[in-house]
Amino acid sequence: MTQKLTAERLFPDLTPAERARMERVESVLPIIKASAQEADEKGALPQSTLDALAEAGLLGLVVPEEFGGLGGGLRDLAATTYALGTVCGSTALAFFFHCSSSSRGMLPLAALEAGLYNEEEAPQVRAFAEKVLNLMGTEKKAVGNFASEAVKASNANVLIQTTATRTEGGWLLNGMKSFGCLSGSADYYLVTARRDDIEGLDALTLFLVHKDTVGARPRDPWIGLGMRASDNHGLIMENAFVPDDLALAVPGGFSRATTMSRGSWVGNQIAIAAIYAGIAQGVWDFAMGRVMGAKFADTGKPIASSPMHQVMIGNGERHLAEAHLWLNRQVLLEASEPPILPKNEVVQSWKLAKGAITEHAHEVATIALKMCGTSGALMGNEIGRAVRDTTMGLVQAFPAERGKLDLAQMIVDGQGIAGLGTTDTMKKG
Amino acid sequence: MTQKLTAERLFPDLTPAERARMERVESVLPIIKASAQEADEKGALPQSTLDALAEAGLLGLVVPEEFGGLGGGLRDLAATTYALGTVCGSTALAFFFHCSSSSRGMLPLAALEAGLYNEEEAPQVRAFAEKVLNLMGTEKKAVGNFASEAVKASNANVLIQTTATRTEGGWLLNGMKSFGCLSGSADYYLVTARRDDIEGLDALTLFLVHKDTVGARPRDPWIGLGMRASDNHGLIMENAFVPDDLALAVPGGFSRATTMSRGSWVGNQIAIAAIYAGIAQGVWDFAMGRVMGAKFADTGKPIASSPMHQVMIGNGERHLAEAHLWLNRQVLLEASEPPILPKNEVVQSWKLAKGAITEHAHEVATIALKMCGTSGALMGNEIGRAVRDTTMGLVQAFPAERGKLDLAQMIVDGQGIAGLGTTDTMKKG
Amino acid sequence: MTQKLTAERLFPDLTPAERARMERVESVLPIIKASAQEADEKGALPQSTLDALAEAGLLGLVVPEEFGGLGGGLRDLAATTYALGTVCGSTALAFFFHCSSSSRGMLPLAALEAGLYNEEEAPQVRAFAEKVLNLMGTEKKAVGNFASEAVKASNANVLIQTTATRTEGGWLLNGMKSFGCLSGSADYYLVTARRDDIEGLDALTLFLVHKDTVGARPRDPWIGLGMRASDNHGLIMENAFVPDDLALAVPGGFSRATTMSRGSWVGNQIAIAAIYAGIAQGVWDFAMGRVMGAKFADTGKPIASSPMHQVMIGNGERHLAEAHLWLNRQVLLEASEPPILPKNEVVQSWKLAKGAITEHAHEVATIALKMCGTSGALMGNEIGRAVRDTTMGLVQAFPAERGKLDLAQMIVDGQGIAGLGTTDTMKKG
Amino acid sequence: MTQKLTAERLFPDLTPAERARMERVESVLPIIKASAQEADEKGALPQSTLDALAEAGLLGLVVPEEFGGLGGGLRDLAATTYALGTVCGSTALAFFFHCSSSSRGMLPLAALEAGLYNEEEAPQVRAFAEKVLNLMGTEKKAVGNFASEAVKASNANVLIQTTATRTEGGWLLNGMKSFGCLSGSADYYLVTARRDDIEGLDALTLFLVHKDTVGARPRDPWIGLGMRASDNHGLIMENAFVPDDLALAVPGGFSRATTMSRGSWVGNQIAIAAIYAGIAQGVWDFAMGRVMGAKFADTGKPIASSPMHQVMIGNGERHLAEAHLWLNRQVLLEASEPPILPKNEVVQSWKLAKGAITEHAHEVATIALKMCGTSGALMGNEIGRAVRDTTMGLVQAFPAERGKLDLAQMIVDGQGIAGLGTTDTMKKG
Repeated sequence: MTQKLTAERLFPDLTPAERARMERVESVLPIIKASAQEADEKGALPQSTLDALAEAGLLGLVVPEEFGGLGGGLRDLAATTYALGTVCGSTALAFFFHCSSSSRGMLPLAALEAGLYNEEEAPQVRAFAEKVLNLMGTEKKAVGNFASEAVKASNANVLIQTTATRTEGGWLLNGMKSFGCLSGSADYYLVTARRDDIEGLDALTLFLVHKDTVGARPRDPWIGLGMRASDNHGLIMENAFVPDDLALAVPGGFSRATTMSRGSWVGNQIAIAAIYAGIAQGVWDFAMGRVMGAKFADTGKPIASSPMHQVMIGNGERHLAEAHLWLNRQVLLEASEPPILPKNEVVQSWKLAKGAITEHAHEVATIALKMCGTSGALMGNEIGRAVRDTTMGLVQAFPAERGKLDLAQMIVDGQGIAGLGTTDTMKKG
Repeated sequence: MTQKLTAERLFPDLTPAERARMERVESVLPIIKASAQEADEKGALPQSTLDALAEAGLLGLVVPEEFGGLGGGLRDLAATTYALGTVCGSTALAFFFHCSSSSRGMLPLAALEAGLYNEEEAPQVRAFAEKVLNLMGTEKKAVGNFASEAVKASNANVLIQTTATRTEGGWLLNGMKSFGCLSGSADYYLVTARRDDIEGLDALTLFLVHKDTVGARPRDPWIGLGMRASDNHGLIMENAFVPDDLALAVPGGFSRATTMSRGSWVGNQIAIAAIYAGIAQGVWDFAMGRVMGAKFADTGKPIASSPMHQVMIGNGERHLAEAHLWLNRQVLLEASEPPILPKNEVVQSWKLAKGAITEHAHEVATIALKMCGTSGALMGNEIGRAVRDTTMGLVQAFPAERGKLDLAQMIVDGQGIAGLGTTDTMKKG
Repeated sequence: MTQKLTAERLFPDLTPAERARMERVESVLPIIKASAQEADEKGALPQSTLDALAEAGLLGLVVPEEFGGLGGGLRDLAATTYALGTVCGSTALAFFFHCSSSSRGMLPLAALEAGLYNEEEAPQVRAFAEKVLNLMGTEKKAVGNFASEAVKASNANVLIQTTATRTEGGWLLNGMKSFGCLSGSADYYLVTARRDDIEGLDALTLFLVHKDTVGARPRDPWIGLGMRASDNHGLIMENAFVPDDLALAVPGGFSRATTMSRGSWVGNQIAIAAIYAGIAQGVWDFAMGRVMGAKFADTGKPIASSPMHQVMIGNGERHLAEAHLWLNRQVLLEASEPPILPKNEVVQSWKLAKGAITEHAHEVATIALKMCGTSGALMGNEIGRAVRDTTMGLVQAFPAERGKLDLAQMIVDGQGIAGLGTTDTMKKG
Repeated sequence: MTQKLTAERLFPDLTPAERARMERVESVLPIIKASAQEADEKGALPQSTLDALAEAGLLGLVVPEEFGGLGGGLRDLAATTYALGTVCGSTALAFFFHCSSSSRGMLPLAALEAGLYNEEEAPQVRAFAEKVLNLMGTEKKAVGNFASEAVKASNANVLIQTTATRTEGGWLLNGMKSFGCLSGSADYYLVTARRDDIEGLDALTLFLVHKDTVGARPRDPWIGLGMRASDNHGLIMENAFVPDDLALAVPGGFSRATTMSRGSWVGNQIAIAAIYAGIAQGVWDFAMGRVMGAKFADTGKPIASSPMHQVMIGNGERHLAEAHLWLNRQVLLEASEPPILPKNEVVQSWKLAKGAITEHAHEVATIALKMCGTSGALMGNEIGRAVRDTTMGLVQAFPAERGKLDLAQMIVDGQGIAGLGTTDTMKKG
């Protein structure tokens, strides 16, 4: 008889292969849970957490098996960030951004297959792509993905201002990346820069910066309200040297790879929303355990039986269920082959789903707090962390209010997916 | 290329057999829609509606094919009440209660197969069971199901006070049934009564009362706020004669049949909730059509583009989606073989689902009303009917507040399904 | 010891003069309550209701005492529409629009005092103004106020298309007025028309059309979802003759009078919102009486003591209280002399108050419905009427969503009261 | 022309005497604001804050002028905690508990006036009462009020287990006080103990424990999610010596004093709720300043003008207004002489008001967070503190759900104020 896995609370219908991967996830949860409070307090992802993920093979969760990975897809990713979220939201977030690095290997490979590179370019592109994937899969390295920069254009796109200057045997990078997990804790940072000897989009170049590189260091700590242990500080590079074998510097090499994206950031962002649902599930279990365990001195009944707690339990269960409903549905829409709905309807659904999941998750955390009373409302315990972490979910990417307005505009404009393109889509299993 | 059916908005994954049945449903929607406003105003289900359902074979929707039915299951039933709800909530409700009569045929058949009747009883039981099913299937008759009476015991069970007295060639019924659709419009009324010559549960007897029976007539009209055309008035019987071939009078015959029930009213009640989701979808389409069609005189843009309408559209879409999520999920839980979750968790989910679906549906209707403004807020148009019909959903069976409290109590008590048994479960397809 | 008046639930601090007026209001409540259900069903304001209001002197509530009125101000008006709302929302609405007619007397008098008319004009203006006020006060006539027409300009202002043509001894009116209470039941209709012999704003002319005038008749009935007995049908005039002594036809006479308005529709609209708060209070009393009066058969305790009812009572009380808080506050802001807040902040407060009061009122009605269950959810009883009437409150004038957006824009624009001018402000007591 | 004070946002109608006191409050706000972030981070109330309050005379805010105080009443107290809340919730909370110590002087004085002490007792009682008030007023000392202990009886009353043993010239105290602000920072701790030489209620004795007393020390720090700088740790006493002149040891002296209480904890608890409304106002000002100050690069319009921000501003303004409405109303009900409503209705109103104020305040903080986005969601800035501090408001004393259920039960039981008695009521100005 098999144990019920945390991931099965989200997907009761795991395939055997998925189940095998989720057993690996389950095995690391106690380790991560044990260090979650201290990690939050220090505002730093523990090395023991990364080690545990590496040893369980999970750094290669979404990397194809031929590169030493586990070959998981979107369902695996969402189930994993959900399960990690039940014990530590920060770890789940950092893990997600690590996994997103795999796109820098998968997209070039797809572009190669599509014949987008000439004979001279192909070997370089393939080498880099396989390098990324092998680092994550075979070598079990943590790879931070630092795409965004602080300066934004009015059309909401990111301007890449980090420059790459040719030098002996490689490149010198200069610039600053804002936001990006695993600052200081990843083995490598995936960085996009502009070659200063080329104009336009063809100048965009990919680099793997080793964490010990001279001239590369995290920005000053970002002291957030929640998600504090995701090492979300950003990166400063001052004449940071990257050797040729850690660069994809073929002119236009990266741009061509991104054309293989399925055309929308929808595709893996839902795995971030899964984190908040996981946090909600985790704090709900904590609160229910507490109010079921504590008894009224006179009657011996659990305090969960008080009228006030009964009301809270009913409300909390409904929010928790609605978070799961949205999450389960959106993953189904994004992962199913053939597609259940046309692409633009999947995007529209995502616009609602993101806000709905995070709002319901935050409500669950708030109700859990109320159930546990003043004495449970500590800064660092499950209650305090869940309240703070789910609060971040309300603003991460876009608030529910924004998603609803975006959807309304799409409906009224008869708008499809234009303008939503990105390179962050990952392979689906 | 196939047309998208209304039912596919709920279940995009219809099987071919389901699709064939749903095409029959789709064919009657225009007819029912055309008479919906007048039916609501008069507070009476039109004969034309019953005729259309009969002609399309839908009175046998959940009757096995061997009795002239279409062989549909819970998914068909929910998809049909949903689709009917988009055009007329009252029709959907009356249709549901008609379909629920099939249990009076299916349960005895199952009891026969289980060997619960002796050689003398078996032929009588089989004859009645087949009579019920053939009436619904082969003969396309509407059969009202009148189980409840006004007098209730403190334990919430219904006390049957209607009596059956033996007479030449049949029985004389005396009593009053409260609530029950199709009063005055069904071809037959399914009625439970107590034989006055037998004590205890064995006295419970089933009768099919023909609508033209002398001494059988509807109670005074029940002038409800909504769901007004479901003929929900109840039934009065004064020495109403029922011939032997329309009675299941074997002592204990009915009681034994009910033991075949799957042990919970969960199983088809979700198809009532589906009505309200359907109403919500219907009124939302109406409102969106109106605000997209009306243009601002100066800019030519639809009034749906106003900031206020954008906010309302986002909010309405979210409520509409949440109604569908809950409905889709609960039908899946109740219809899937093998079961996805243990029975008690399915019941717990139902406790939330019922309230959630009806609350979200009512919110959608309210937002639709606001979108259409004062000039759209008529008593009998799509807006007025949807507001009034979905309001009934808030109180039908139990309000959301009650469902949440029930769930909380079940969780705290570690309670399973005890006490939830009923005879209303129908066969699943 | 004095009886507690309905109006004191809103204003516990009535002055002696206000209390005297509110005792008149209290005296008519039973009469109006008795006919409320039938009035709603027929969609017509009963003559007995108008008679009762007239006999109690209330048709002159806001008319100065020198014209036979009671000299009440905004607090009286709001307290009265609130009290009437507890028994019949439609009556309250019709009464409000009757009272608003007084502005057609008050504003010209103020303009006279300000010296806006020459020696020739003054007597005509004074005669008309006193005519309006004496009709309402001394003669106890009901005066419908028909300002709006169906054709609207893109800037939201009403275009007056009704024309007045000179004829022997008076004027012939032609046109159609949309929305306006007391169609068919008022003694006189106050109508704005354009003299067809004058260009521009100076053409605007006021007429008192006697209800028996040949050629003047209500439009086809407007069959609304709620507020059905306010005779809100509009008016059609085809060569309707109005004698000179019932006209204010001095060129520009009306325009100059409107300049005396305090510059915003804020001022009496709050008395419409008061209606919905009154309806909420009325239906809450009904529901509480019902759940306190009905007892559980086994325990003898009121069904109000069930956990579900306890939750509903708590929620309903809060919404009811919030409706009263907003209403009380906004009347205070609008009626106090000297002003507590600057004008633009009073308008901003109104933008929130209107939506808040009507939303809370509607919530109360919905909770009352749930408390009373299916058997209480009748079309015409207190529950059904309150649900339908408060639903109209959600759309009347502007929905809460619109008010909030308007406020946000005012804040961001640093906007004052520009563009909010109207002629509907009435004298404050 | 006078400056608008923070307190006037709550009470626009300050009397001249109140205004003078509120000007003192206004003068300390910048000082407290400057140290708020660091205080929260360290989890300790800064000495500079207490010094500023003392120098402004505010430690005697609610102490009669004859004892060197400012003679303020409940309106002053609520207006002050509100104003302090706009810059530092923790300071406001600690200040409230300091002020509550005044009851230990006021109640004995009232009992003296009522003749409850004999000639021998009277001088001792008067000396102690005047000592407490003079410490707070004339001497500007901070006095912590430590009433509660961890061990509670099933009837929710606190059992006093701290003992007082007679020794040369005074008493030795032993015991532990849980929760109580100003642990470690007050000049004196007001402590209730049982004389171990007397049985029953007469044993209850009051002591002023100087903070430097050997054997008296704060418990281990309580690391809460919010309100972290209120020094809310509790107190441990091990043979702590208190001289006779700092004790009210007359047998039964304290018990008799408490009989002068107005019979309910309602009376000053509303001043705690005022803190959360103040925090909401403070964070709203911060957020509005930020979104009005930040401009879109391309259009130059404030980001507050974006559709999403407009929605949030409207929603936030409504919650903010509702918090103020409840607070303003409840203070009015509790402070007015003669009373506006009967005592039990004031208590019922409080049951709703507490939850409503804190829920609306928390909503405002959450919306402020969303308005400021991820970059504004820092642990220690105005956003992070307001979110965490208002979260504590949801559980402090009782959650909104509990208040609503209490009210429902009071209504159904026809219950008055029985069981709500306490000694914490303070004099009203």
